[in-house]
Amino acid sequence: MTRTAFFISDGTGITAESLGRSLLAQFENVEIRMITKPYIDSVEKAHQLAAIIESTAVKDGEQPIIIDTIVDSEIRSVIREAPGFKVDIFSTFLEPLEQELATHSSYSVGRTHAIGSDDVYMDRIQSVHFALDNDDGARTHQYDQADIILVGVSRCGKTPSSLYLALQFGIRAANYPLTEDDLDETGKLKLPPVLEPHRHKLFGLTIDPRRLAAIRHERRPNSRYSSMDQCVQEVTQAEALYRRMHIPFIDTTRFSVEEISTRMIAETGINRRFSPR
Amino acid sequence: MTRTAFFISDGTGITAESLGRSLLAQFENVEIRMITKPYIDSVEKAHQLAAIIESTAVKDGEQPIIIDTIVDSEIRSVIREAPGFKVDIFSTFLEPLEQELATHSSYSVGRTHAIGSDDVYMDRIQSVHFALDNDDGARTHQYDQADIILVGVSRCGKTPSSLYLALQFGIRAANYPLTEDDLDETGKLKLPPVLEPHRHKLFGLTIDPRRLAAIRHERRPNSRYSSMDQCVQEVTQAEALYRRMHIPFIDTTRFSVEEISTRMIAETGINRRFSPR
Repeated sequence: MTRTAFFISDGTGITAESLGRSLLAQFENVEIRMITKPYIDSVEKAHQLAAIIESTAVKDGEQPIIIDTIVDSEIRSVIREAPGFKVDIFSTFLEPLEQELATHSSYSVGRTHAIGSDDVYMDRIQSVHFALDNDDGARTHQYDQADIILVGVSRCGKTPSSLYLALQFGIRAANYPLTEDDLDETGKLKLPPVLEPHRHKLFGLTIDPRRLAAIRHERRPNSRYSSMDQCVQEVTQAEALYRRMHIPFIDTTRFSVEEISTRMIAETGINRRFSPR
Repeated sequence: MTRTAFFISDGTGITAESLGRSLLAQFENVEIRMITKPYIDSVEKAHQLAAIIESTAVKDGEQPIIIDTIVDSEIRSVIREAPGFKVDIFSTFLEPLEQELATHSSYSVGRTHAIGSDDVYMDRIQSVHFALDNDDGARTHQYDQADIILVGVSRCGKTPSSLYLALQFGIRAANYPLTEDDLDETGKLKLPPVLEPHRHKLFGLTIDPRRLAAIRHERRPNSRYSSMDQCVQEVTQAEALYRRMHIPFIDTTRFSVEEISTRMIAETGINRRFSPR
């Protein structure tokens, strides 16, 4: 039997969905259809959504699970009347927090993800463009401005990780691909000369060669580039280089981009320029 | 008086931080220092963190606020003993959910942000590379594979939004810059020919000309490109084009990348290829 969960917000829905998925992930044996409904910021939209919730309850034969972060009390009361099992985050926690902080909370709609200061915005845009300009070794003369330089073989996850660091945390991440040429030279296990002065900023990525071969195969099927032999050789040499040079590294095989990025931050202690909102 | 809040997790910390920031954003008049502590996944790390919390309580002269999503009961009990005002999300909501779903939850550590299926990973990587390959009008022959094509003048927020859509939702977003040439021609208010066949996929971005001038000034100070006149003219023409061609558009001036992206999804109804975890 499938249940339905609604993640409802008057803003982006990111918080409600993030929390909802975390909670429901603990129930592996229940099949749950998850629906995010952001920008429910008027009584009218709330009534429309309440009607959807009602018809879902009828169709499922079970009340839906409702996880919401709506701040406005009038809008929330409409959703409350819909049939559902309510996980009401704000009303559960805001009142005790008001007591602890000895103050009232401001019930402003969609407060969290508002753009904030201009500085934060500029930092974010600049970090994204830094990551793009310094992607894949395209440029190396800005490495002195980088917060971190990701190194690794082609398609081990450098680009998505650099972009995630930029977008979510305003971190300036360059990335440099260890190519066959670099790695051949490092048969003697030496760093590419261009990386040498920035050794303290390097962070290595590695990956299971089978996974790498599958990813490369999507790009260039049946090529030497995507062959198992080639992938094993490159990965082995890259890891040997990290160990020899004491470059911290992480195996991306079992990790999401979120995990790779937050683990790198935790391990290096780099400062975020801002925080996700 | 400054208070301290700790967002603590055995995984990435994304859920605890997202919820914590949402809750505390309702208390604008209290100064709160926010610290995220991810990967508290052993009793040893929990003890180290408990010591930090204790010394923070002494320094602040007030107990810290502790918002955690730790699943393991042994690790959580260590944090519980530290002095703090606890917002305990999982223990508050999991038990009622267990009753509602008539099943027990799996207390697996760091379950939510685990990488998931290979398909999801591939989709994500491919969407990021699609956004990069099709950034800034670099390529236009893949527009038939795009889920959405963002248009707008230079530096109005197209690139960060495309990348966010790719990273967070696996959406294939291309973006095309409306340059002076395009806009001059569209003095007659016509679409650039390359966009014509994909009209139904277009989404416009616009921006306050003053903000645009400030952003461009960071890139090329005191240039024609960053002059107020130029910015006013480009923005006015772009908006006239959107209206004439019935292209939906959004003003990015007051919005974060999260808001721009989730509003575009809500408005167009594009399907996400996966959901943030």
